[in-house]
Amino acid sequence: MDLKPTKPLSGFIELLPAQQRCFDECARRMLNVLRDCGFSMLDLPAIERAEVLTDKDNWDEIETQMFLFQYGDTNMGLRYDGTVGLSRYVAGHLNDLAFPFRASQFSKRYRGERRQRGRYREFYQMDMDIMGINTLSTNYDAEIISVIQRTLNSVSEFIGGNYVRIGSRPFWDALFNWLDMTAEQKKAVFVLIDKKDKMEPSEFIAGIADTLNNPEKEQVIHSVFENGYAGLQNKTADLDSAITEINDFMRTLDLMGVKDARLDLSVTRGLAYYTGLVFEFGLTDYPELQTAAGGGRYADLVGKFSKTKIIGVGAAIGFSRIFVALMEMGKIDLSQFESATDVSVLVMGNENLPYAMSILNALRDEKISSVAYLDTDKKFKNQIEYADKIMTKFSIIIGEDEVKNKVVAIKNMKTGDQQVLSLGDAIKLVRGNV
Amino acid sequence: MDLKPTKPLSGFIELLPAQQRCFDECARRMLNVLRDCGFSMLDLPAIERAEVLTDKDNWDEIETQMFLFQYGDTNMGLRYDGTVGLSRYVAGHLNDLAFPFRASQFSKRYRGERRQRGRYREFYQMDMDIMGINTLSTNYDAEIISVIQRTLNSVSEFIGGNYVRIGSRPFWDALFNWLDMTAEQKKAVFVLIDKKDKMEPSEFIAGIADTLNNPEKEQVIHSVFENGYAGLQNKTADLDSAITEINDFMRTLDLMGVKDARLDLSVTRGLAYYTGLVFEFGLTDYPELQTAAGGGRYADLVGKFSKTKIIGVGAAIGFSRIFVALMEMGKIDLSQFESATDVSVLVMGNENLPYAMSILNALRDEKISSVAYLDTDKKFKNQIEYADKIMTKFSIIIGEDEVKNKVVAIKNMKTGDQQVLSLGDAIKLVRGNV
Repeated sequence: MDLKPTKPLSGFIELLPAQQRCFDECARRMLNVLRDCGFSMLDLPAIERAEVLTDKDNWDEIETQMFLFQYGDTNMGLRYDGTVGLSRYVAGHLNDLAFPFRASQFSKRYRGERRQRGRYREFYQMDMDIMGINTLSTNYDAEIISVIQRTLNSVSEFIGGNYVRIGSRPFWDALFNWLDMTAEQKKAVFVLIDKKDKMEPSEFIAGIADTLNNPEKEQVIHSVFENGYAGLQNKTADLDSAITEINDFMRTLDLMGVKDARLDLSVTRGLAYYTGLVFEFGLTDYPELQTAAGGGRYADLVGKFSKTKIIGVGAAIGFSRIFVALMEMGKIDLSQFESATDVSVLVMGNENLPYAMSILNALRDEKISSVAYLDTDKKFKNQIEYADKIMTKFSIIIGEDEVKNKVVAIKNMKTGDQQVLSLGDAIKLVRGNV
Repeated sequence: MDLKPTKPLSGFIELLPAQQRCFDECARRMLNVLRDCGFSMLDLPAIERAEVLTDKDNWDEIETQMFLFQYGDTNMGLRYDGTVGLSRYVAGHLNDLAFPFRASQFSKRYRGERRQRGRYREFYQMDMDIMGINTLSTNYDAEIISVIQRTLNSVSEFIGGNYVRIGSRPFWDALFNWLDMTAEQKKAVFVLIDKKDKMEPSEFIAGIADTLNNPEKEQVIHSVFENGYAGLQNKTADLDSAITEINDFMRTLDLMGVKDARLDLSVTRGLAYYTGLVFEFGLTDYPELQTAAGGGRYADLVGKFSKTKIIGVGAAIGFSRIFVALMEMGKIDLSQFESATDVSVLVMGNENLPYAMSILNALRDEKISSVAYLDTDKKFKNQIEYADKIMTKFSIIIGEDEVKNKVVAIKNMKTGDQQVLSLGDAIKLVRGNV
């Protein structure tokens, strides 16, 4: 019989145990921050009705990447982000939730991405969203940014520093209106702006020229990437209002203690559902990872599920994108994650199993991470090799003498020191070194 | 525009925030036990190649329930359990892992189950497996049972006590051989034994009679459900060996400190991949949930991925089956999970936001779970209603006076007591009551 393949499907992540421990530790720290910030964790289905996932108006690009399938008579698919499911959930539980509702999700999402470094078909994102009914102050947008920065700072030991760039959808909308652009021009220019970072400068300039065919207007668009909103004040009320919102917002970020926040109107967060301020986090030490987290305000997303006006601001941290990518790049020191266990109990013969088990149980009752080598007929050499291989800090060796004298022989696997101690003293020794 | 549905697909679980907090707390405790027992957490892809998931010989029943689909040219599907993916992973990483390898998984699985109470199409299982190369003492089978009991005991506050029933596949194999049954008879009788609990007694008796058509042999089969292996010793060497293994194993369970372990040869764990001892946990207080966890030894499962002989013993805890079912039955007191947050900061006007934010940041820096109400133009009444609704233990109210005097007004939301304190004293107050 031919052997079946042992590699996961292309684009799917599979970590080794030490990598997984690092991944889990980073998630644990970040989720603790989210809990301290009063976010309720939600764990929604990974599968949604196709009609919930797809919305021809907005999702063209993502739609081609969706895992859709049929089961029985129902068309369904795997979620590509956390926001669509959250919107459905909130609309379905308006009376069960208190608003503004702070929700967090840490879950797998699925996209049939083209294969490239740092792009996965199954990946974790960590989302946080705040949803309000009818109104929601932009103070919450600032809070989301502050909270993301807290979560990223909690793992700065692994990922270094971070910064955030702030953009504004209303700014572009008002600018396009002032420039008296047609609906087609607006969309085309917006697509170009969104893709600007992936284009050659000349390609971008040509695209804008082709679309607008008006050097003055083209120059206004280009000026934003050079000088921001300078020279664009006092043109229209909407434009002034967007500029005022941006300036107020930058001040609020500052008083919330957000560090390294930069106004950057080239940040637009794509064609999707954002309607207000938008933002993208990057990692100071790893510009090549591009966006570590991103989000913004969405005023209309819940509208397809409910007549109640629900306004949200939310963001997703590209959790796999950051941690798996940095591990693959060899940028994370995994040495502190190499061992899962503090103590190995080695059992020299099955007749010593009862005593060895009482030791193992006592260690586990004391919440000292411990395993036993239970192929008790194996030689000492094999057993100590195992303890060495799993990198336990200590081995406890149980033979005839230890059983007779109700003691343990405990070996420090780093120094090689071996002592015979009472169980209580052995536990103290492990605790002192753990 | 018609509104889209807000309910999840039938068979998919969606919890309210307080339920989710209970679910997460139970998972946290149980996973901590697994870590203390030296299990390495793995997080494998939810999607596997179809050829990895399907194996016509063994999986007929599950296969009809699988979510299979095609993406590009590849047939793939969602995992229905954790063991197939683990076998693939271990076979692919023989040189990266130390054996015996203790692995744990806590992840979603997918089955297109017929709808019935307690059956879900997407559900969590918590797996633990120990895999060895060439040999693996049944001491490890006993350890797995001990570890499951530890995990269940860690949440006994919610699920009550547990017991475990032990069965043996080699016993039935040896018995069938002694009875000189044909291969067809063996399979048919085994299917009947596996489904016995779901059949009328008369139906089971008739099924056995139809298959064996030999009253003496039929009586031997039935005797096992009455008297276990009594009267079946000294028949064949294989049967004696199976009985000895069972008896030794019950003693090992005892010396490992496992409570409430019962020999019950009617436990067979279905047609799937088990080849040795098998076991099922039940909850003392909730017999209606039937199996809370189950597992056993599998000698051949990794064979389709590797020529190296890998023997495993493993089990899955029906995590969603237990916790979601008990919540749906109203058996879990969620009162301790109603609140996500200890402190609400209420801000009386946006001019007080800077000071309020410094308070919020200080609380979060102290890891005191806290939120702020940031629609600062809302009246005190709205803001305190929010604090009441999210059930924070304290509210901190920031108005003009508090800013001027650099103090906080802190209200105990249960007693209604309100005091004006320094931030430091307020933190002490919260800590004393949290």
